[in-house]
Amino acid sequence: MALIVQKYGGSSVADAEAIKRVAQRIVAQKKAGYDVVVVVSAMGDSTDELLDLAEQVTPLPPGRELDMLLTSGERISMALVAMAIGSLGYEARSFTGSQAGVITTAAHGNAKIIDVTPGRIQEAVDEGAIAIVAGFQGVSEDSKDITTLGRGGSDTTAVALAAALNADACEIYSDVDGVFTADPRIVPSARRIPKVSYEEMLEMAASGSKILHLRCVEYARRYGIPLHVRSSFSQKPGTWVVSEVEESEGMEQPIISGVAHDRSEAKITVVGVPDQVGVAAKIFSSLAESEINVDMIVQNVSAASTARTDISFTLPAADGQNALTALKKVQDDIGFESLRYDDQIGKVSLIGAGMRSYPGVTSRLFDAIAAAGINIEMISTSEIRISVVVEQDAIDGAVAAAHTAFELDSDQVEAVVYGGTGR
Amino acid sequence: MALIVQKYGGSSVADAEAIKRVAQRIVAQKKAGYDVVVVVSAMGDSTDELLDLAEQVTPLPPGRELDMLLTSGERISMALVAMAIGSLGYEARSFTGSQAGVITTAAHGNAKIIDVTPGRIQEAVDEGAIAIVAGFQGVSEDSKDITTLGRGGSDTTAVALAAALNADACEIYSDVDGVFTADPRIVPSARRIPKVSYEEMLEMAASGSKILHLRCVEYARRYGIPLHVRSSFSQKPGTWVVSEVEESEGMEQPIISGVAHDRSEAKITVVGVPDQVGVAAKIFSSLAESEINVDMIVQNVSAASTARTDISFTLPAADGQNALTALKKVQDDIGFESLRYDDQIGKVSLIGAGMRSYPGVTSRLFDAIAAAGINIEMISTSEIRISVVVEQDAIDGAVAAAHTAFELDSDQVEAVVYGGTGR
Repeated sequence: MALIVQKYGGSSVADAEAIKRVAQRIVAQKKAGYDVVVVVSAMGDSTDELLDLAEQVTPLPPGRELDMLLTSGERISMALVAMAIGSLGYEARSFTGSQAGVITTAAHGNAKIIDVTPGRIQEAVDEGAIAIVAGFQGVSEDSKDITTLGRGGSDTTAVALAAALNADACEIYSDVDGVFTADPRIVPSARRIPKVSYEEMLEMAASGSKILHLRCVEYARRYGIPLHVRSSFSQKPGTWVVSEVEESEGMEQPIISGVAHDRSEAKITVVGVPDQVGVAAKIFSSLAESEINVDMIVQNVSAASTARTDISFTLPAADGQNALTALKKVQDDIGFESLRYDDQIGKVSLIGAGMRSYPGVTSRLFDAIAAAGINIEMISTSEIRISVVVEQDAIDGAVAAAHTAFELDSDQVEAVVYGGTGR
Repeated sequence: MALIVQKYGGSSVADAEAIKRVAQRIVAQKKAGYDVVVVVSAMGDSTDELLDLAEQVTPLPPGRELDMLLTSGERISMALVAMAIGSLGYEARSFTGSQAGVITTAAHGNAKIIDVTPGRIQEAVDEGAIAIVAGFQGVSEDSKDITTLGRGGSDTTAVALAAALNADACEIYSDVDGVFTADPRIVPSARRIPKVSYEEMLEMAASGSKILHLRCVEYARRYGIPLHVRSSFSQKPGTWVVSEVEESEGMEQPIISGVAHDRSEAKITVVGVPDQVGVAAKIFSSLAESEINVDMIVQNVSAASTARTDISFTLPAADGQNALTALKKVQDDIGFESLRYDDQIGKVSLIGAGMRSYPGVTSRLFDAIAAAGINIEMISTSEIRISVVVEQDAIDGAVAAAHTAFELDSDQVEAVVYGGTGR
């Protein structure tokens, strides 16, 4: 029998009514002849409420205890979903991350999944029950402590379970209708993308699309699990994320899948860096030691007269202060002149597997952005993505210009789409 | 090093402020040179809030899922208590019932503890940490499902852990100052009892005193764990419950320890029962099959002319309807005439190990109640207890009359005492 793993985000289980609606959807899948395993997030804002409680008790809660606290949120939602299914006459059994065999590293708050041993889940499914699993949580391999998986954790739980159970597909439900060619709040004519490759989805996630977390897509690609991103508030199909879009469909596919944007980055420029071998390595290894992930890097041509250059890079704005501190520590050693920090920037990315075989995509993008009167500060490219950094105020304009230039605009506005997904 | 197990009820951890206060008390014990293991209930009304959520989802939640839901309450409070201790510079580690090795039967909602294997708790204590354990919960031996222990569950967890860890004492904290000679809301001159035997405490618990649950006291007696019942809102000593009150103290002890009352019972009278061998057995086995616990039983002398008798018994009023249904089913078989039901009754009990060696206690009690103009409907006695059933409206008067008759009144009102304890 075909097995489907479904994941419901916090907004889909926000209250008793939402939970009953989700239960009906789950039962409908079961009635249609599928085995069903469900992964749930905590209800609505309950995680924030727990964090607030912790903050009232101490400004710096220990990670182990914070994980113990936060994981109660999924325990509540999963038990309620199981009850709601029970009241529809179907058997459901809920399982904590630990019971579901989600084995992780001991990094509290950001644990990585090491292994999934879903014996109890498989047993429940074999006995005809619907298994409900707490997302976002696991148990550490050595210390047997409760852990949480960090951002995107529930999606990752769902995909990891789908892989371990050899599921036929993994459905990711939230309050958005799928992956769009751009954020519909910026581009009202944005269209839902019916099908996209793992590669493109990875680039989108890395470029600021919040629909799916990078880890979840990487996991799905590694194990070849088809993902279906859709809304729990409608019956409409969403977006399929699959290994590759078939030839026949490829004919219909536009060159570009979508335009993503990211407002969360900042730019640091290291001014007056001696133009010598190994200096750039010193800069970025000092950042790596502070566990700061750098995104785009640009090094200007050095001015021959001074034998000095400027190196600019982007990073999550949240890490800005740490990065500046780390760099100041090595200033004397490296001998650069000064640091400039700018968090009023944004990144706009064009993503599409089709750009591989179409030359001229880059120039078309630059032309469109220039025509909109927007200055490009930095550029970086991959085989299937072009990203530009612009002033924060110019993000919306750049997204719209790119969307139109690549003929992504729909004839009509397709749907009302809500805010980002939960964890 | 001496080991103390402390248990804090829901009112003691009701909010962030209360949790910080409890943390200070725990740390003070640790600073005083004790190893400390703490058992906590869920915060304030949070269990009721979870029950309310369950009710919104389904009128009849499955026991397994209800237990999964409710146990999240202790997970929240224990993590917060551990954090609060951490912020005071001491290490605390929280453990679920399952992690603490509380192995139970699979009776969801009312599981019994089969064994306690507190390896992880002992390890934490040996490493100098304070262990915080979720009360009220365990894991079933066979199915490894999460269970709850039912009423009085957190107290029972504390005593069971104290026994398994060979603790020197178990402190039960709530919002009451200890065990009193009567409910101070009825008898303002009631006094705190400094020391009481397990036997007397058992009789009190069985007679309606809500300070400690019967199961918890039974467990403490079986393993000889001294209990200290006290308030988390003051530093005053409370009531010690111990195996026996020593001779020297015994001299000072009054004949009677206290007066308990119970408003939760109802009385059923089976009218016109054939006065034959085995009829009473049929009545009570039909009740036992419906899992109804009968308390007091009185059988009147049969009227010789009819060879029929009346049998009256008391039971929890909550079981009243079930009992009537069970009895009606066997009416034809047994041949009784009718059933009478009265839930406007109450039980008043006089408890004291001292009554063993003092004759005349019974008559002194009856005289006092009669002098207060109160009619006694039923009587039952044990070696250290006399209970009478009176009209519900007469309970307060009977308690006060008994309290005064046995010289339990204090010269002054000792303390403001709050409502009953949580689970």
